[in-house]
Amino acid sequence: MANFVKDNEDLGYYLDRGIDWDSLLEINETRFGEGAAFSDPEEAKQVYRDMLEMMGEFAADEVAPHSLAIDEVGVHLKDGEVVQPDAMNHVMERIRELEIHGMCLPRELGGMNAPFLMYLINTEVLARADVSVMAHHGFHGGMALAMLLLSIREGTTEIDPETHEISKTRFAEYIEEIRQGNAWGCMDITEPDAGSDMAALKAVGEQDEDGNWFVTGQKIFITSGHGKYHFVIARTEKAGDPNDPMAGLSGLSMFLVPTYEEDADGNRKRIVTVDRVEEKMGHHGSATAALTFDRAPAHLVGQRGEGFKYMLVLMNNARLSVGFESIGLCEAAHRIATAYAAERRSMGKPIERHEMIADYLEEMQTDIQALRAMAMHGGFHEEMAQKLTLRGLASNTGDLSRDRAIRRHQAEARRVTPLLKYLASERAVEMGRRAVQILGGAGYMREYGAEKLVRDAMVMPIYEGTSQIQALMAMKDTLGGIMKNPRGFVKRMAQTRWRWLSSRDPLERRVARIQMLSLGAQQHLLRRTAGAKVRGLSGKPLSEWPTAFFKNWDPKRDFAVAMLHAERLTQLLADELVCEILLGQAKRHPERADVLERYLERAEPRSRYLYDSITSTGGRLLSRLSAAEDEAERAAG
Amino acid sequence: MANFVKDNEDLGYYLDRGIDWDSLLEINETRFGEGAAFSDPEEAKQVYRDMLEMMGEFAADEVAPHSLAIDEVGVHLKDGEVVQPDAMNHVMERIRELEIHGMCLPRELGGMNAPFLMYLINTEVLARADVSVMAHHGFHGGMALAMLLLSIREGTTEIDPETHEISKTRFAEYIEEIRQGNAWGCMDITEPDAGSDMAALKAVGEQDEDGNWFVTGQKIFITSGHGKYHFVIARTEKAGDPNDPMAGLSGLSMFLVPTYEEDADGNRKRIVTVDRVEEKMGHHGSATAALTFDRAPAHLVGQRGEGFKYMLVLMNNARLSVGFESIGLCEAAHRIATAYAAERRSMGKPIERHEMIADYLEEMQTDIQALRAMAMHGGFHEEMAQKLTLRGLASNTGDLSRDRAIRRHQAEARRVTPLLKYLASERAVEMGRRAVQILGGAGYMREYGAEKLVRDAMVMPIYEGTSQIQALMAMKDTLGGIMKNPRGFVKRMAQTRWRWLSSRDPLERRVARIQMLSLGAQQHLLRRTAGAKVRGLSGKPLSEWPTAFFKNWDPKRDFAVAMLHAERLTQLLADELVCEILLGQAKRHPERADVLERYLERAEPRSRYLYDSITSTGGRLLSRLSAAEDEAERAAG
Repeated sequence: MANFVKDNEDLGYYLDRGIDWDSLLEINETRFGEGAAFSDPEEAKQVYRDMLEMMGEFAADEVAPHSLAIDEVGVHLKDGEVVQPDAMNHVMERIRELEIHGMCLPRELGGMNAPFLMYLINTEVLARADVSVMAHHGFHGGMALAMLLLSIREGTTEIDPETHEISKTRFAEYIEEIRQGNAWGCMDITEPDAGSDMAALKAVGEQDEDGNWFVTGQKIFITSGHGKYHFVIARTEKAGDPNDPMAGLSGLSMFLVPTYEEDADGNRKRIVTVDRVEEKMGHHGSATAALTFDRAPAHLVGQRGEGFKYMLVLMNNARLSVGFESIGLCEAAHRIATAYAAERRSMGKPIERHEMIADYLEEMQTDIQALRAMAMHGGFHEEMAQKLTLRGLASNTGDLSRDRAIRRHQAEARRVTPLLKYLASERAVEMGRRAVQILGGAGYMREYGAEKLVRDAMVMPIYEGTSQIQALMAMKDTLGGIMKNPRGFVKRMAQTRWRWLSSRDPLERRVARIQMLSLGAQQHLLRRTAGAKVRGLSGKPLSEWPTAFFKNWDPKRDFAVAMLHAERLTQLLADELVCEILLGQAKRHPERADVLERYLERAEPRSRYLYDSITSTGGRLLSRLSAAEDEAERAAG
Repeated sequence: MANFVKDNEDLGYYLDRGIDWDSLLEINETRFGEGAAFSDPEEAKQVYRDMLEMMGEFAADEVAPHSLAIDEVGVHLKDGEVVQPDAMNHVMERIRELEIHGMCLPRELGGMNAPFLMYLINTEVLARADVSVMAHHGFHGGMALAMLLLSIREGTTEIDPETHEISKTRFAEYIEEIRQGNAWGCMDITEPDAGSDMAALKAVGEQDEDGNWFVTGQKIFITSGHGKYHFVIARTEKAGDPNDPMAGLSGLSMFLVPTYEEDADGNRKRIVTVDRVEEKMGHHGSATAALTFDRAPAHLVGQRGEGFKYMLVLMNNARLSVGFESIGLCEAAHRIATAYAAERRSMGKPIERHEMIADYLEEMQTDIQALRAMAMHGGFHEEMAQKLTLRGLASNTGDLSRDRAIRRHQAEARRVTPLLKYLASERAVEMGRRAVQILGGAGYMREYGAEKLVRDAMVMPIYEGTSQIQALMAMKDTLGGIMKNPRGFVKRMAQTRWRWLSSRDPLERRVARIQMLSLGAQQHLLRRTAGAKVRGLSGKPLSEWPTAFFKNWDPKRDFAVAMLHAERLTQLLADELVCEILLGQAKRHPERADVLERYLERAEPRSRYLYDSITSTGGRLLSRLSAAEDEAERAAG
């Protein structure tokens, strides 16, 4: 029997020792040996591994074999309801039987209380088998967790500060329905005229005299939008100054909207209409719906105007998920290419021994290991940050060391998330393409399954925030961070230079060199971003820089250089991050030095190239754009 | 009315002054003012332009609007015959009415005697509208030209040495049928176990006692394989030593095989069976057939054992065609992305003014201009080489200056072809992807047409010789060329360095710098390829190097470093070539300096990166592969 967990040595490293399971257990399991809880951490780890190995076998034997059929049949709309392929329904029924939807829910809500990281790892394993199944599956347990999470955040969940047990939660009924596999939810943000630009959202949330909320508007491109529960972002306040790109965000609120109205006899009436399901390039088994909300009764989540904030919480998890999903697809691409290259002979030997093919395969393997290192790192810190925050909310007491830990974990998660979402989704497309190319003519034919990987992968750099949005976020966070703490930046540069010159570990020196290039690029962009401003600051003490620097800012122009190079900077930041994580692994587990060495060999010339491009190109294009801005301003009067 | 020629300023440059039309006219039109010929070169150029503008309008108004429907419906097999989409049949019928199939055939065969370059430019224009239409159309006129070309080469066409008119040609009947749009041909090479590795081909050609030839075997992945005439490569001699990778090539012969047998009453019986048509990622309107030949009566073309040689002639033209086809697709991708970016607003302005999007669009535009420069250069020299060769064959007299010209044109065409096929097809995939990404969610939906471009583009780096094969050819030609003339290489390095240091034209200096990097990478690979051998040569005079160098060669190992870096070298060679061609244009037409500047800005850091990667990476992987070879040899005893 095939098993997508047992056959994966790199994944095994994390299950075995590559993740700080003790910290995760400490935050997730507070009462070893009591009641239904594990008797000790070792038992917990063994159970987690058993669960994932069960999923690995399920994915390999019961999902992957249906993948081509699910793609072939696809979803369609019939009488206002979405019809899924039979094979998809069959797989979802099996998932229900295996009771996986409740994997990460607390025991008191009927779940298995597994860490959220288990949900993410499971995402990779299922995505390797079929991304449509993975995505649709994710909108079950993932949405139940979201309901719980947002309820805790808004204060409508009661938690015993001693036992950390939940005695009451606002959406308990919906969560239970999902846990049993009888419903799923979705996340409705995008509208016809607002994709990345959320300030332009137009759906409205209105309150009647009795305080009841109703949502009206259209949403498009909603994955698993045929769900029973919708997290909807809608406008409750008027937009501010239209020239301020962030103006509209504070007018948004978050709602939970059920699809159906049920009367006392249990008769269902649909109030959220599915207008169409899209014909897409791939992900054929996953419904992408256009929806209409016509005064749909809605639960306001949190306070009015907090929609964007709540959305970010969900979006962050979703972006991590896309990272893990992308890795699953990369793994599938690498496996299909490796198997073919071992069999296919040309010029007297299997093509896996042809230099170029061997190079491609090794690069794929190395990049997958790099992405997984990022993903595990990001997933760990995100979970620690979230769970510590929830614990703080529940205990209602201050705890300085906890707050420090939260800030540290948040900073790491915030650093990793856009880089992971960016790099993993881009690599998924590249690796799908590589697999097709290695299979040659066969790769282009549907029956071999390689071309499907490209079609499926192409949405990953688009949904849950495009690659360009991730790049802008990473750039703004990085440069903003320097401006908030210029002294820290200067110190980091000095320390890195010192390690580069004097570390006794050659790998550490090589990593320091890549860090130097990244820091150098950041410094360059900051100088170019606001050369005039920085020059004006030269007489002032460092501590006054941030305030002075952020004064009189023209966001349309001052950031232009950094915006132009945001993607290149992101690639460089990602190389730097991967090297740092892998170096940490190599220090703890010397057998991991091999991955780092392979990664460094490719990252070194690439980092030099990125630094080179950032510091030497773009001037001409920026002049042209600046002239276009002048022109537009003149035209606007 | 839209027009894919009139709306294209860069293409207009070539029609107007970017191509050496006078040389092409001199070789194609020998009798201005006589009979049906043009009265003078100006009239010829005007007619050519009119023809292309007609095609531009046709492509825009009558092909492009059917593109999505052709993709949606696709081809299928019914009762052993291929059924094309109605829209495809309609378009082909219109092409027949416009009498385009004979565009490049000589007047005496009913054609318009246009240069072959016109066929290639037309390929770009049609491919921009729909690649399935372009491909299927190409297997009409292109195959008629191939029949004529191979017949002249084998000596079965009679040409008046004075008037250059054809009085008789072997396949006249078939050519006429195709010209009238009543038939098309195809090129049958690939077999289930032989793709890039043609020495492994197994289809056989056998002769009966009366000297009649018959072909038996299977061919797969045959584009427009439902044609009436098949150029088939089949084995007529037994394979030699299986360890010699080139052994099997000299046992191949070229055949022309009609699909049907016709009796005296005109009743047709199919003898070449279409076993299936493939379900592909894209190119849905183009039939990709698996064929069985069961003792099919065949015409031997040329001599036994010359199959590979004849195939190369056809393949060369096909590779140029794929280059032009890829440019058409790039153009479509750029246009769809540009139009969307001008309309779609985000953060208060159209996204075309967002820095990253502007950067993508400009890169696409620049790369398209670079590819077109390569393609026009390659197409021109290929045509000059072929037509001068044919003239030589027809005149049957020696002409030293003609021979020199042929060698010069052949060398340029040979240099360009693999670089163009490689770069244009790779860029087509990238630009399709870029278009999807710029359209965001809409890009992933079928109705917007962007995702189709990716699906259609993905075969371009595979068919007519994969990108990897192109890279190996370019690498072998380049390094082999140095070994044949090491003195010439040393001289070229010195001259380039001199231009880099001392040219008064800053653009020429920048181009020289890229040439230096390319030459440096070549030198590095040559040294690493056979370090020991080169060291052994140091005492010998340069003139003896080639002989000594090629002795005792182990092709499996000695070339390993160069094979590993072949693709990176190819990218560097392509950047070098583009810069040289664009510099030449800028010297003749100063307004072209802008394209070169835009290209240089991106090519400079990229060339440094490629040089860097070639000279600093790969050692570890090669050691591993070498160990695998040792292992395989031990296992083989």
